[in-house]
Amino acid sequence: MASQAEVAVMGRAVELAARGLGTTSPNPVVGCVILDASGAVVGEGFHAYAGGPHAEIVALAQAGERARGGTVVVTLEPCNHHGQTGPCSTALVNAGVARVVIAVTDPTTSAAGGAERLRRAGVEVEVGVREAEVEAGNIAWLTAVRRRRPFLIWKYAATLDGRSAAADGTSMWITSEAARMDVHSHRSTADAVLVGVGTVLADNPQLTARNLRDGSLAIRQPLRVVVDSEGRTPADARIRDQAAPTWVATAAELGSDERGQVNLADLLSRLYERDVRAALLEGGPRLAGAFLAAGLVDQVVGYLAPRLLGAGSAALIDAGVHTVADAIELEFTDITRVGPDLRFTAVPRNVKG
Amino acid sequence: MASQAEVAVMGRAVELAARGLGTTSPNPVVGCVILDASGAVVGEGFHAYAGGPHAEIVALAQAGERARGGTVVVTLEPCNHHGQTGPCSTALVNAGVARVVIAVTDPTTSAAGGAERLRRAGVEVEVGVREAEVEAGNIAWLTAVRRRRPFLIWKYAATLDGRSAAADGTSMWITSEAARMDVHSHRSTADAVLVGVGTVLADNPQLTARNLRDGSLAIRQPLRVVVDSEGRTPADARIRDQAAPTWVATAAELGSDERGQVNLADLLSRLYERDVRAALLEGGPRLAGAFLAAGLVDQVVGYLAPRLLGAGSAALIDAGVHTVADAIELEFTDITRVGPDLRFTAVPRNVKG
Repeated sequence: MASQAEVAVMGRAVELAARGLGTTSPNPVVGCVILDASGAVVGEGFHAYAGGPHAEIVALAQAGERARGGTVVVTLEPCNHHGQTGPCSTALVNAGVARVVIAVTDPTTSAAGGAERLRRAGVEVEVGVREAEVEAGNIAWLTAVRRRRPFLIWKYAATLDGRSAAADGTSMWITSEAARMDVHSHRSTADAVLVGVGTVLADNPQLTARNLRDGSLAIRQPLRVVVDSEGRTPADARIRDQAAPTWVATAAELGSDERGQVNLADLLSRLYERDVRAALLEGGPRLAGAFLAAGLVDQVVGYLAPRLLGAGSAALIDAGVHTVADAIELEFTDITRVGPDLRFTAVPRNVKG
Repeated sequence: MASQAEVAVMGRAVELAARGLGTTSPNPVVGCVILDASGAVVGEGFHAYAGGPHAEIVALAQAGERARGGTVVVTLEPCNHHGQTGPCSTALVNAGVARVVIAVTDPTTSAAGGAERLRRAGVEVEVGVREAEVEAGNIAWLTAVRRRRPFLIWKYAATLDGRSAAADGTSMWITSEAARMDVHSHRSTADAVLVGVGTVLADNPQLTARNLRDGSLAIRQPLRVVVDSEGRTPADARIRDQAAPTWVATAAELGSDERGQVNLADLLSRLYERDVRAALLEGGPRLAGAFLAAGLVDQVVGYLAPRLLGAGSAALIDAGVHTVADAIELEFTDITRVGPDLRFTAVPRNVKG
């Protein structure tokens, strides 16, 4: 059993972990606190970027000799593999820690086994402290490595009657500037942004992440992915500019299903291999329908503008649902006002693996 | 200038007024507090039902002689007409009150003039205290009497992608039981419920207001109105049962526009003449579009279920909008979770008179 003090310290480790959000991909966020034998905090650390030191190593460096006989409180099971930084399990054993308290076990086959290695070395190991909280904080990464495909967020903007464009095709702008700025901050934490070729042909978007204050490009740009079965993305499309990397995914490259469309599960596997862990699906309505019908959407973020159109393109088309009883069931996890608009976040009740 | 104490007392009058919500139609809700010459509360009253005593009369009866030289704080301008209860202005003059503090003036031509009558009798009159608050509490009635048509609330239920039925036409149930119960409580405060004949033919609804606890009929039933230009409502439709009054409004009775459809503004005028002040428009998508296009909707209440369909009927069709710049602009006034669903309330930024 973890002590009350250890549970509280795990809360601090969760805070530390969150500082890495958006910069650690393809690695998870991790936070670590080290207590000496008397229970005093002697080291803190978090994983800041892929290739940088792991949270445990940062905390151990700070604790030095005071870690001996102490307790390590860490959000994710310490790794056991010789990556760019050497196994944390070995470092902890060498530091002589007596006890390690872990929130969530590492689901990756290459890194797992750290807890077992510690136990074999005589270290007391406790797993599952504040597990739900740490799961939530790492949900994209955990889901991705468990399913070996990116955590896919479908983002859309629509009117209250579910339209993403008016009868004449105009769609700029359905939502407010505040909502569009919110999308940019979302993009900058994603590893990839996906759109269908229809969206490229209709709107010619650049799909970059921009700083909200001055409109300049954010330092970290997601991979731009066009799902383009027949290779119709124009050579001069803005999405092909130098502002960020781009992949035009065609059936010729990826193979296709019986309808000649890119196989979406394969597409996601390829993105996972390219280290994409969180991906943002931005449009259009048919591509969203295809991903939803395939059970490949992990989260839905909708911006609903307080406007009505009564005509024009629906925000979602052909999701494989014929009758109400077969509707794709979600659950709201957040409802917030963004400027004059409403933003909801929802997760499917049952996602296929 | 009203004193701070009078402003506070108006808050109490607003509370009293609200007790009449849902039972006073076609009259407004009104609350009244009487202070004696020393500022002590000596009488309180509210208008409980049409035909019953006005708030001022109830409060005066309680105050008796102590009203002499005192102050009357009342949410709506005291009436000046000989209705079922005699003019309140005369009663106040006869009671010898020194001062009357009013939030909102009465916009009805038959009842207005109370403030003027009081002033001529030497009573000090103050108007506009907590005006916005009292306006909001009486918005349906005030809007109705100013426009001489019912305050029209469009209520709809849809999925997050704006569908009110699936591809096969099924629509039971898009929203949760909690949301449907919420609709019943809405209905019981409306004077009329409107649907198009299409909804009658498709769903055969009864459109009654039911008690939420045991499913029995609520005491007060709104008038059920079918907008049925060509008179297609079946003789055995549930909406024609004895549970509540029903009006099947046909073009033959009401006259029609160039497309042979019932003139909606005329329909609303007729409902106003029938003492309907608050009306709930419940469906379907084309009738809602027609009312919205005509600028006749005063409030939108939407129940959005966390589900996706990707096909099926849109919640709103043909609202007279062709391009995004001409969208019908609303403003959220409330966003609440009702069971698993989301309910929003919004008002048009510009409603035509």
